[in-house]
Amino acid sequence: MTRLRIAEIFGPTIQGEGALIGEPTVFVRTGGCDYRCSWCDSLHAVDTAYRHDWAAMTTDAVWSRVRGLSGGRPLTVSLSGGNPAIQDFAPLIALGRTEGYRFACETQGSIAKPWFSELDTLVLSPKPPSSGETVDWAAFDACLLAAGNGPKTVMKIVIFDERDYAWARAAADRYPALPLYLQPGNETVDPTQPVDPQTLSDRLLWLVEKVTADGWFTPRVLPQLHVLLWGNKRGV
Amino acid sequence: MTRLRIAEIFGPTIQGEGALIGEPTVFVRTGGCDYRCSWCDSLHAVDTAYRHDWAAMTTDAVWSRVRGLSGGRPLTVSLSGGNPAIQDFAPLIALGRTEGYRFACETQGSIAKPWFSELDTLVLSPKPPSSGETVDWAAFDACLLAAGNGPKTVMKIVIFDERDYAWARAAADRYPALPLYLQPGNETVDPTQPVDPQTLSDRLLWLVEKVTADGWFTPRVLPQLHVLLWGNKRGV
Repeated sequence: MTRLRIAEIFGPTIQGEGALIGEPTVFVRTGGCDYRCSWCDSLHAVDTAYRHDWAAMTTDAVWSRVRGLSGGRPLTVSLSGGNPAIQDFAPLIALGRTEGYRFACETQGSIAKPWFSELDTLVLSPKPPSSGETVDWAAFDACLLAAGNGPKTVMKIVIFDERDYAWARAAADRYPALPLYLQPGNETVDPTQPVDPQTLSDRLLWLVEKVTADGWFTPRVLPQLHVLLWGNKRGV
Repeated sequence: MTRLRIAEIFGPTIQGEGALIGEPTVFVRTGGCDYRCSWCDSLHAVDTAYRHDWAAMTTDAVWSRVRGLSGGRPLTVSLSGGNPAIQDFAPLIALGRTEGYRFACETQGSIAKPWFSELDTLVLSPKPPSSGETVDWAAFDACLLAAGNGPKTVMKIVIFDERDYAWARAAADRYPALPLYLQPGNETVDPTQPVDPQTLSDRLLWLVEKVTADGWFTPRVLPQLHVLLWGNKRGV
């Protein structure tokens, strides 16, 4: 039986960012990624130097852990990574749905999977220039096609600088029908270092002032609440 | 012609809380309220000691100001107060809608108005015991009835203490079909005093830990981003 590579399963906590901000959730963070963003905040789920820390779990074992953490009370399960689209989550989603759980997945949109259509929420997060990665828009389109009308699909873009901002505007023009969430980039991703709430506030203010000054009223601008609450600590 | 009593019109900025958190918006804050919550953060729109600061504006004048601030680019207009349900916003909503603007209204749910059905978003925010007010649930039900299937209607509850929290759980049980947003109360509402971001983080953490410990997974738990960004300063 195929096993899932899992970096961590934790919660219940709240979703700290994007379309489901504030929503109670259990995170299933997968190990492995086809990207290596310069500012990645989850290297422990990306860098293969950490691969011996990733558990090889059956779908049943993952589900048992989610069920245990949530006390069997249905909530939203957030599939994140790494890139969860590397692996097959169709069986996990099917299992959870029979018990009333909902599923959200965040992925960069580089790999399309049939199970996207079974999700409740799909967050496609194409990476801006500061990441050092280059978006393959044909792959992104394939993700949209795979999702179809199944989940609520949204686009989330992290913005570090002016160049990212201009890039985000062009990406938004490309997908006018996708609800858009913008998020200021987190410059301090070392989990051993505390994060100054004032810095988070300043970064958010910068982005809010940019969109309002430009009269760009379609995106929502949101911070990362988990960084406000816990800094870059893992497992919360 | 009936004039609207307006405490302030400002923006574009982002909606700092609740269902539309992060959304660019222009605020129309009305003057006058039928409540006097102990911890009110908008006394300048509630306390009649400030009534000489409230402008008596025609609907056209209000619309002209909203249009000017947003550069004629459609966005969400947030009707707040005070209690905006004291006054007649039907003509303003009709005017704005012809130009593609959307309308959200936040009210405690003590007064129902036919124009609720014309809104895009209605936030009903019944006040918990710490406010010193007592909710009239028959009036609240009348608000739901007036809204009908017109807007997306949600419930938002501010929570200061354990008693408020227990009260919110009972209110949620009463309206299981209403999406629910919980928000930690802001203890420091003096606009001349800075707000410590750490305090905001601590208050949010308290509430997040309560709902997750209780396995209460239906509400979203969100802070007031505008307080994080600007403290209690007005007009932002």
